[in-house]
Amino acid sequence: MGDIENNGLSNWGRWGSEDQQGSLNLLTPEIVKKAAHLVKQGKVYSLSMPLETEGPLWPGRHKLWKVTMHKTTSGPRAHSSDDTVIMHSHSGTHMDAICHFWYDDQLYNGFKASENVTSAGVLRNAIENVPAIVGRGVLLDIATWMGVEHLKIGQAITADDLDQCASAQNIQIQLGDIVLVRTGWMRVFSQDRELFNSGEPGVNETVLPWLKSHDIVGIGADNHAVEVFDKIPPDRLPVHECAIRDLGIYLLENFNLEALAADKVHEFLLVIAPLHLTSAAGSPINPIAIA
Amino acid sequence: MGDIENNGLSNWGRWGSEDQQGSLNLLTPEIVKKAAHLVKQGKVYSLSMPLETEGPLWPGRHKLWKVTMHKTTSGPRAHSSDDTVIMHSHSGTHMDAICHFWYDDQLYNGFKASENVTSAGVLRNAIENVPAIVGRGVLLDIATWMGVEHLKIGQAITADDLDQCASAQNIQIQLGDIVLVRTGWMRVFSQDRELFNSGEPGVNETVLPWLKSHDIVGIGADNHAVEVFDKIPPDRLPVHECAIRDLGIYLLENFNLEALAADKVHEFLLVIAPLHLTSAAGSPINPIAIA
Amino acid sequence: MGDIENNGLSNWGRWGSEDQQGSLNLLTPEIVKKAAHLVKQGKVYSLSMPLETEGPLWPGRHKLWKVTMHKTTSGPRAHSSDDTVIMHSHSGTHMDAICHFWYDDQLYNGFKASENVTSAGVLRNAIENVPAIVGRGVLLDIATWMGVEHLKIGQAITADDLDQCASAQNIQIQLGDIVLVRTGWMRVFSQDRELFNSGEPGVNETVLPWLKSHDIVGIGADNHAVEVFDKIPPDRLPVHECAIRDLGIYLLENFNLEALAADKVHEFLLVIAPLHLTSAAGSPINPIAIA
Amino acid sequence: MGDIENNGLSNWGRWGSEDQQGSLNLLTPEIVKKAAHLVKQGKVYSLSMPLETEGPLWPGRHKLWKVTMHKTTSGPRAHSSDDTVIMHSHSGTHMDAICHFWYDDQLYNGFKASENVTSAGVLRNAIENVPAIVGRGVLLDIATWMGVEHLKIGQAITADDLDQCASAQNIQIQLGDIVLVRTGWMRVFSQDRELFNSGEPGVNETVLPWLKSHDIVGIGADNHAVEVFDKIPPDRLPVHECAIRDLGIYLLENFNLEALAADKVHEFLLVIAPLHLTSAAGSPINPIAIA
Repeated sequence: MGDIENNGLSNWGRWGSEDQQGSLNLLTPEIVKKAAHLVKQGKVYSLSMPLETEGPLWPGRHKLWKVTMHKTTSGPRAHSSDDTVIMHSHSGTHMDAICHFWYDDQLYNGFKASENVTSAGVLRNAIENVPAIVGRGVLLDIATWMGVEHLKIGQAITADDLDQCASAQNIQIQLGDIVLVRTGWMRVFSQDRELFNSGEPGVNETVLPWLKSHDIVGIGADNHAVEVFDKIPPDRLPVHECAIRDLGIYLLENFNLEALAADKVHEFLLVIAPLHLTSAAGSPINPIAIA
Repeated sequence: MGDIENNGLSNWGRWGSEDQQGSLNLLTPEIVKKAAHLVKQGKVYSLSMPLETEGPLWPGRHKLWKVTMHKTTSGPRAHSSDDTVIMHSHSGTHMDAICHFWYDDQLYNGFKASENVTSAGVLRNAIENVPAIVGRGVLLDIATWMGVEHLKIGQAITADDLDQCASAQNIQIQLGDIVLVRTGWMRVFSQDRELFNSGEPGVNETVLPWLKSHDIVGIGADNHAVEVFDKIPPDRLPVHECAIRDLGIYLLENFNLEALAADKVHEFLLVIAPLHLTSAAGSPINPIAIA
Repeated sequence: MGDIENNGLSNWGRWGSEDQQGSLNLLTPEIVKKAAHLVKQGKVYSLSMPLETEGPLWPGRHKLWKVTMHKTTSGPRAHSSDDTVIMHSHSGTHMDAICHFWYDDQLYNGFKASENVTSAGVLRNAIENVPAIVGRGVLLDIATWMGVEHLKIGQAITADDLDQCASAQNIQIQLGDIVLVRTGWMRVFSQDRELFNSGEPGVNETVLPWLKSHDIVGIGADNHAVEVFDKIPPDRLPVHECAIRDLGIYLLENFNLEALAADKVHEFLLVIAPLHLTSAAGSPINPIAIA
Repeated sequence: MGDIENNGLSNWGRWGSEDQQGSLNLLTPEIVKKAAHLVKQGKVYSLSMPLETEGPLWPGRHKLWKVTMHKTTSGPRAHSSDDTVIMHSHSGTHMDAICHFWYDDQLYNGFKASENVTSAGVLRNAIENVPAIVGRGVLLDIATWMGVEHLKIGQAITADDLDQCASAQNIQIQLGDIVLVRTGWMRVFSQDRELFNSGEPGVNETVLPWLKSHDIVGIGADNHAVEVFDKIPPDRLPVHECAIRDLGIYLLENFNLEALAADKVHEFLLVIAPLHLTSAAGSPINPIAIA
């Protein structure tokens, strides 16, 4: 594989040669049912940052634009308002479809990028193949475990860190989990926008075999891109390359994990419902944790 | 009230003079917990229609526009794709914020429209006040109960119909329910687009006291606007006027209820997670039913 | 007229009760022909600033957004590129339609704003009524005449200043002229963006009778809004109120007048060709001076 | 050159290895001055079709989208309106930048497409290199010369046809001319939209040496793409390939030539002022003919 080292990690063919859902196949009804039974208090958390012009956004993408059409008349005394929104599918809190990233002209499961990625949309592995991600969400609160307000730019989180943090939280990682890694970095978003957009702490390549051996459905974080780098744009995004393209795993980005962490809620029913956008490479989301 | 007759129905002031959430206040942790326990099989349903240029959309609104930025280079061998989406906040399957509709210059809870509805957004009752709607979803499958493929354009569903259908389905309507009314009209969407966009069957004004007395959180349907009319634009939208503006109840539109109906799933955990769009009058959604 | 003082200035009814072109009626073929004969050297000047995300734009308007669809395939070896542009009709160098500004619910020539200004567009006096403005352009280079690099924020230019400057330049103002006032303020755009967006030098209300008595077709400047104010948003825009709404005169904004000034070109054939945008309140333009 | 046959036609290097303006270099002050002297009557023609959602647009491109922000308040009694426009740079009546079309990874003058055409814009030969096209416009009214209302779909116009038509009109083609070819096809636009979007009459490859030998600056027509084809998308666009990429000549599309033809105006001062859009592959235009 030359300079891209995926350690032989792959889920290609595992769910058939035509599969376009990747790790979503792991979410059986049994897992969903067990996750629903995690709801003990009936407390609902929205894990979304505000979706707005000045919300978190990968540098280089255009800012969200919204105009409100106000005071449309309806009948003799009534009026309505509506908005036009212009945004990237990867705006604010969002998830990547497994067509979002690739190398060597092949998407997840071997589909050719040159045949399937077009100006009009992506023909395979697009977000429309994800009706929803519903399962057990696990918060690994690395910042709290490390005793810091937030990790530093460029600070790597390893598979061993994830294991130790889970153990300290008394959490056993299970097949089909959606793992949310809290670095504290979203606090930097409001404190120092320039720093937030210069790089980030996050998981590194050691996490890739861990994702595969635990059969994780998705991994998210409170930063732009889940993985670590010390400048933007980074030279490479090795976790994107392997997790999305080789393993068909969903990356979940710019999450707000502050309330879950404050309440020490470490496992919960997680419902992620991407917009059912035809042929899109991702979607903004409002992920809902129910504890 | 002159020509707008709301029968004295109002929730203004009920949750305080500054309340911007309306019926969402009804969803207590107890209700959420009970709804989660409705999950028996672990089966997940997306109730969204495809969100695309040719998806369901109120005539007069512009069609959704999407362009894909393909093959952005990242590192020596990797590439990524992303999309730009331009859409109304009321595109496809969507929910109305309780600032969406008003009369006599007053929004829900008495806020002045002339002060709060601006080209830059709506300052009160906007969708950002809805972190999520999580509770018991109830399907009232009127089309099946009436023994028709779909109701006819302009055919009204009354409060009495809702009661009889619930009774036939062995469902007791409860405080805090989110009620989804199936008219079968979404079948017309694929069969006859012109007819679909000419009017619709739906609930009429008799349902307003029913919504209030049952303390319903939201009411949805498989059509443009939940309520009945025989031409587009209709002369008035009386259910919008009273449900949104007087009662602070959420309207849920263009739902795909076919799979729930086929499986005869009449109660379920329902999770609706609008995009956390600042100052917007609504949001496209991908509602998730879990049974 | 209460707080809005238009000194009885009005062109309403002058060109008929249905007129939607205002001062454009002044441009007779005779004037066009004479203007064409001003071309002596055959030198062409574009008076447009770059139309781009970081170009001049009234604070509060969203920045222009452009994405390029690149490398669309056409045939065995050929490709093409195209762009999607999202912008305000009043972006960068632009002209105001005479429906852009009004007071007391009446547009130029007495049309009711409440009936003609809608979310879907403006039904009267929109930019589509301006096929082109072709006539004699006159540069009044106030900054050079005053011997300053640029006038100061909040510094007013009076009718008397215009007359003295014209006289110093040996220019006689004529019926049908399009007058471009150079304040030097566009130099501030590249030097100090924050100052540029805080207010501007420009003409004040004394110019309104001057515009009327000379029968000027349009007045432009190298700033956001032609007229003077010392903060943004200003409390009022009296020149907009009277020139656009009472006189039906065209305002021409964010012009680049540097090259004309450097060459001391004070009269020229001026061609302004707004996009033929149906029902729009203005258009970005690339004004062409030919000397 | 394999299947792309350009007969050795090329202007690469002619105006220097860094030139990004192509045939625009031909327009000397002398030519501009002579063109201005063609103005005899002072009559002004806008050659633009309406720029609107249902205006002429290459099938496959998204339709123009416009929303009007109405009734923004300014001061105690005044209001303003503005619009947001979303459009392709190749919307309605428009011109192609000479970066719009290429083959074998090389743009006009040999710049590499793979290095210069990006999602963020085109770095060479973009429309910003065209301050304006000002020169002699020549109408070759082929439909009138052939005695037909309009040519037929797929009907080719040859170099010989252009010569004969010019001769019949007593026009001598000169270096630096901008040639507008009237096929009558724009009449089909209002009569039969489906036919208009199925193909078109236009010039064929025989015109390429003619453009080169006459040193034409630009060639336009009253159709989508100047050149002939009998289906959309066509298999190839050979005139685009050679005129734009090999010769650096400007293509001018979807012109409204009806008024010029009705008045038998065959030569005129032509002013084309593209929006000064940074790094764009073209621009909508409102071309102005002055006779």
